Amino acid sequence: MRKELRFSGFGGQGVILMGHIFGKAAVFDGKNVTLTQSYGPEARGGACSVDIIVSDKDIHYPEVRKPDILISMSQPALKTYLPSLAEDGILFIDTSLVEYTVMENKGIPATELAEEVAGTRIVSNIIMLGYFTAATGLVTEESMKKAISKLVPKGTVEKNLEAFQVGFDKGKK
Amino acid sequence: MRKELRFSGFGGQGVILMGHIFGKAAVFDGKNVTLTQSYGPEARGGACSVDIIVSDKDIHYPEVRKPDILISMSQPALKTYLPSLAEDGILFIDTSLVEYTVMENKGIPATELAEEVAGTRIVSNIIMLGYFTAATGLVTEESMKKAISKLVPKGTVEKNLEAFQVGFDKGKK
Repeated sequence: MRKELRFSGFGGQGVILMGHIFGKAAVFDGKNVTLTQSYGPEARGGACSVDIIVSDKDIHYPEVRKPDILISMSQPALKTYLPSLAEDGILFIDTSLVEYTVMENKGIPATELAEEVAGTRIVSNIIMLGYFTAATGLVTEESMKKAISKLVPKGTVEKNLEAFQVGFDKGKK
Repeated sequence: MRKELRFSGFGGQGVILMGHIFGKAAVFDGKNVTLTQSYGPEARGGACSVDIIVSDKDIHYPEVRKPDILISMSQPALKTYLPSLAEDGILFIDTSLVEYTVMENKGIPATELAEEVAGTRIVSNIIMLGYFTAATGLVTEESMKKAISKLVPKGTVEKNLEAFQVGFDKGKK
């Protein structure tokens, strides 16, 4: 098993954090993981992204070229990265912010749900991670919760775990 | 200008943090940066590493193959990664823990200095960063200090800035 993933959105959505949470969770599951992030102008507003490879074996080439899974949390990110998605890849979008419909799409109104359940759009990334976790089964629910607890700012763990659960429950359906 | 860097050592030395501090500092200097880190078994004891590319232009291929600069904070890391160093590359080692001598070497007893000046080896990574910054001029002193202040745990900023200065002063010589 080797999967390439690209998480994308705009600066401030916590896209990089999504990558680190997923990466840590996959390690808790016993997988090898590489993560590549870009700093730079694009991180300050435009499309930003983080690439992750997860594998049962050693990873010799950490470069993601044709992601099997693309998460787009913004329309510009979708526009930038959709051409890279593998032909049989799966696209996840935040339907609060991104308009796009194809059969293989997995959509969740992460930003609206975040405002609804947490009163702030800041947890939209974690809601998406919950949805993604349930929909793909790439990592276990337990490892994701453990990784969230380790990586979100202190004092926000409970709120983030609730957000994860909201997304996870939607993804199971 | 495009430089490939690989920072390496064993788990617990803060090698990944070194990469994130350098990456942020380079962005403060107006550069583009990618950072690739590995999670997995090797992060829990054996050789661990982080790859960084810094460039004035967009970075299309984030993979480091022949680093221009290699920092090795442990002997196993040196053994693993030295063959990857570019022919005209520069090697930095923690001479407290790594034995190796070639002409292009830059060595500093980072771990001993850390114990001497801070009473703990935990800041050896920041001492190395100070030394590296002065010796290479790849990023400015100001940006490194700003990045350290943002990325080290709260309550340890002052100690880390002191450690940086110790390394920086040695590197200027």
